[in-house]
Amino acid sequence: MNLIVVLVSPRNPLNIGAAARAMQNFGCEALRLVNPYHVAFREAVSAVSAGPILKAAQEYETVGEAVGDCSLVVGTTSIGHRELQHPLQLLEPGAKLIRREMAASPVALLFGSEKFGLSNDDISHCHWLMRIPTVDPSRSMNLGQAVAVCLYEIARRATKPVPPKKIKPATADQIERITQMLLEASRRSGYLNPVVASSTENKVRRMVRRLHITASDAAMWLGMLRQILWKLRNTE
Amino acid sequence: MNLIVVLVSPRNPLNIGAAARAMQNFGCEALRLVNPYHVAFREAVSAVSAGPILKAAQEYETVGEAVGDCSLVVGTTSIGHRELQHPLQLLEPGAKLIRREMAASPVALLFGSEKFGLSNDDISHCHWLMRIPTVDPSRSMNLGQAVAVCLYEIARRATKPVPPKKIKPATADQIERITQMLLEASRRSGYLNPVVASSTENKVRRMVRRLHITASDAAMWLGMLRQILWKLRNTE
Repeated sequence: MNLIVVLVSPRNPLNIGAAARAMQNFGCEALRLVNPYHVAFREAVSAVSAGPILKAAQEYETVGEAVGDCSLVVGTTSIGHRELQHPLQLLEPGAKLIRREMAASPVALLFGSEKFGLSNDDISHCHWLMRIPTVDPSRSMNLGQAVAVCLYEIARRATKPVPPKKIKPATADQIERITQMLLEASRRSGYLNPVVASSTENKVRRMVRRLHITASDAAMWLGMLRQILWKLRNTE
Repeated sequence: MNLIVVLVSPRNPLNIGAAARAMQNFGCEALRLVNPYHVAFREAVSAVSAGPILKAAQEYETVGEAVGDCSLVVGTTSIGHRELQHPLQLLEPGAKLIRREMAASPVALLFGSEKFGLSNDDISHCHWLMRIPTVDPSRSMNLGQAVAVCLYEIARRATKPVPPKKIKPATADQIERITQMLLEASRRSGYLNPVVASSTENKVRRMVRRLHITASDAAMWLGMLRQILWKLRNTE
């Protein structure tokens, strides 16, 4: 399955093991951890026979690095209180979009920490958010159970062939480079006000992700922005 | 929800708590326990805010007593090695049958112990068995995760579809202004080669249109580009 499960700042090793077990149950192998709390999670007994998935899990310091090679980045949320800036899909239609994308290139599915979920900064790396249709959004799901339910739904139809998309999307790395260049151009031109810079940065990051830039267009964007930046840098 | 979750001989209080939490997440309230291992399961921290479900859980000595008032009894199984004497349904069609029955009378859904699953004796009380479509039937699911996935599937059709958010696209005027500003920035920065300028212009025009910029994002793009252009114009 062309799906990468990314656990952001997970705290409980038992939950990491449970996530690995659910991954094995539903045929998903690639586990990535951003900034995990290091209490011997690689030996978590809750993984049962999914030990190999845990041992092969890769660690990253930032969400950006963890999703660099993915063309679609989806964040999970219970949207208890968070003001939504992102399109939100329920699990079933969301899983359909994920399956379609998986046919062409890797998809990252992000789960936040047990206590706080994904931060606004984590979410700014996502193309859209997905919610499991629980009865009360103010009550979050257990991490391992949320992973299991999402993977069940994504794998449910996996036997049915989904016609592959013809257009190759840009990778998260390319999109992030475009974002960074746009931010630098905004700083150098005075568009970014330092006082509100960080919230504007997240706004720009989300905005760029809403564009669904293709791989071939990404090269053109990078070329244009590189040249604009070169000019801006050389005229200060 | 007219569904009763019956855990038969559960061993780990954390799993009982996790089952209660999943029940709360998907709107199911009645938990029954057959012959549980008594280690203070009613205080299991894994229940989080589903403590009331745990406290109200009823205890029975036999499966027969626990399902006495139900008109349909369904056992869950991973069918690793057990010789099947019972009709078997995959979760999705099985959930459909359960929903239909629930409309009229209570349905019991049985989960066996973490280690051995349901015994042949337990299964003899069931009308049929249900299996979650995992990739490898010899590897069982975690109890709490199995409860979560089953309840998600049973509740899936009960939830109302959320109407998609109406996103207002940018007007052609706005898109063309973005295009023109991008072209001017490209000219001023030297990205546009005058010899092939007209074909590149068309390329940029098409590229901007592929982005499907929304009306609210268009304002931000125009603001950024206006500022970048102002800087480029004033530094020549």
